Amino acid sequence: MSLVECIPNFSEGRRQWVVDAIAESIRAYPVHVLDVNLDHDHNRSVITFAGEPAVVADAAVAAVRTAAAHIDLQTHSGVHPRIGAADIVPFVPLRDVTMAECVALAHAVGRRVGALGIPVYLYEAAAQRPERRDLAYVRRGGYEALAREIDVPEREPDYGPTLIGAAGAVAIGARAPLIAFNAYLETDDVEIAKSIAKAIRASGGGLPYLKAIGVLVNGQAQVSMNATDFRQTSLYTIMTRLHAEAAAHGTRVTHTELIGLTPQAALLDYAVESLGLPLLTRQRTLESRLGEATGDYRPLTFE
Amino acid sequence: MSLVECIPNFSEGRRQWVVDAIAESIRAYPVHVLDVNLDHDHNRSVITFAGEPAVVADAAVAAVRTAAAHIDLQTHSGVHPRIGAADIVPFVPLRDVTMAECVALAHAVGRRVGALGIPVYLYEAAAQRPERRDLAYVRRGGYEALAREIDVPEREPDYGPTLIGAAGAVAIGARAPLIAFNAYLETDDVEIAKSIAKAIRASGGGLPYLKAIGVLVNGQAQVSMNATDFRQTSLYTIMTRLHAEAAAHGTRVTHTELIGLTPQAALLDYAVESLGLPLLTRQRTLESRLGEATGDYRPLTFE
Repeated sequence: MSLVECIPNFSEGRRQWVVDAIAESIRAYPVHVLDVNLDHDHNRSVITFAGEPAVVADAAVAAVRTAAAHIDLQTHSGVHPRIGAADIVPFVPLRDVTMAECVALAHAVGRRVGALGIPVYLYEAAAQRPERRDLAYVRRGGYEALAREIDVPEREPDYGPTLIGAAGAVAIGARAPLIAFNAYLETDDVEIAKSIAKAIRASGGGLPYLKAIGVLVNGQAQVSMNATDFRQTSLYTIMTRLHAEAAAHGTRVTHTELIGLTPQAALLDYAVESLGLPLLTRQRTLESRLGEATGDYRPLTFE
Repeated sequence: MSLVECIPNFSEGRRQWVVDAIAESIRAYPVHVLDVNLDHDHNRSVITFAGEPAVVADAAVAAVRTAAAHIDLQTHSGVHPRIGAADIVPFVPLRDVTMAECVALAHAVGRRVGALGIPVYLYEAAAQRPERRDLAYVRRGGYEALAREIDVPEREPDYGPTLIGAAGAVAIGARAPLIAFNAYLETDDVEIAKSIAKAIRASGGGLPYLKAIGVLVNGQAQVSMNATDFRQTSLYTIMTRLHAEAAAHGTRVTHTELIGLTPQAALLDYAVESLGLPLLTRQRTLESRLGEATGDYRPLTFE
């Protein structure tokens, strides 16, 4: 059975009932809702679900429709870049499905969302224009800038009207799994977070496959990151660089958080690298060997 | 189906054919051999297998018999403490089996190994004398001391003859999963490794649930450790202490290694602690949520 993951982000992290309504519209389809995460500070939420491609497409369209009905970008506030009520809708191949199939899925969903009257931008592997592979480019200036500039040829949607309403627009894409990862600094100076973000991110000549911005959350400076290919730029590489930059700025990382669901492989890779273990230790866990031998991969709890 | 793990350690890490012969005698039974690890430096090997309790018992007795036939403790050399050809035979409950059942298994196997003419000492949860819960106590002085002292009342075996031959004796036990973990120091001074081991281990007033010795391996000082309860004293706690002690001794940890198979949970716990993530991140991996939702816990590879 082929399995696709969809991780839509919505511009609502405070009104629980709105996020519940969106989740319910997804659960109306035979998909598996794996996680619902409300981020009050960023006023943003992430729902993670998975299932067979055609059903995931139906559920994604329903989620976009519900979000558009309840979220008004003209009154929304939050520090995270966003262009729409349903802000991004990425599809990730999990099992027995190719990236090309996820690209086709993004196009099919984009066509249906466009028909609802919402402008659609295709991004990453689904992009039709090379510059739109970059989500930051698609969302530049946020909802406010897009509302002003949607008539400009460079901002013409891939699907839907060249006209933006209260629900904004949506970026629909296909991509590899990403790790959404925030590190809090022991300072209230957001400029330090911005300076560190600029130094470590790929676009500033820092680490490849890393996006980063500096924001202020509850009075604490935060480096908010997306690691877009953890096999190329690992969590350990990112943390090592982050600790060094923080020290150079006279501060330190107090704690971190992961948004949404992280591939276990990324955490295991981190442990192996940080402990200085041989790389093949990844395949040397009791659970993985037991799974290979018996076909039963259930975790062992040892509680 | 109940599942028990058995991780016998043998005093042979150089003659591949001997270890192969032992593994073959295990594979003659319907168990799953998960790992075969030869440690040339310690001249020691570890075979990890799992299966239903009664079959695991049969395979364990066969392995002890094969090891006794091919390994002569009178000519064996190696820095690791050992008392026998098959040196230790621990049983660990994995699924749908209690520690009490593993204790019963250790007794049953002990009785059968004793009948082969090999002295048996029951240790950890299977111990019949409180002091024998401690494997280090059981193995004190190694084969050489035991050969001299076996007539002393304190060293009377739990099963088998009060008489030691070339195959030595065997410690048979039941225990929770342990992590056998070595850290290499950037020094050839084994006294530093011994001093660090003494400072960090439970018996020296260091970290609870940690055993440690200092040894010299290929000209590099090594702290060789057993973490006997990784939920109580985590890999991260051990590493933090180890780094601090190494620094205090003017050296550092160059790399580490895990012997045998490590529970994945211990590595995930390490990542979560080291990254400063909320503890519940452990349950927030994509694989664990997908497993709970679909019943399919196979790892995702994203290669």
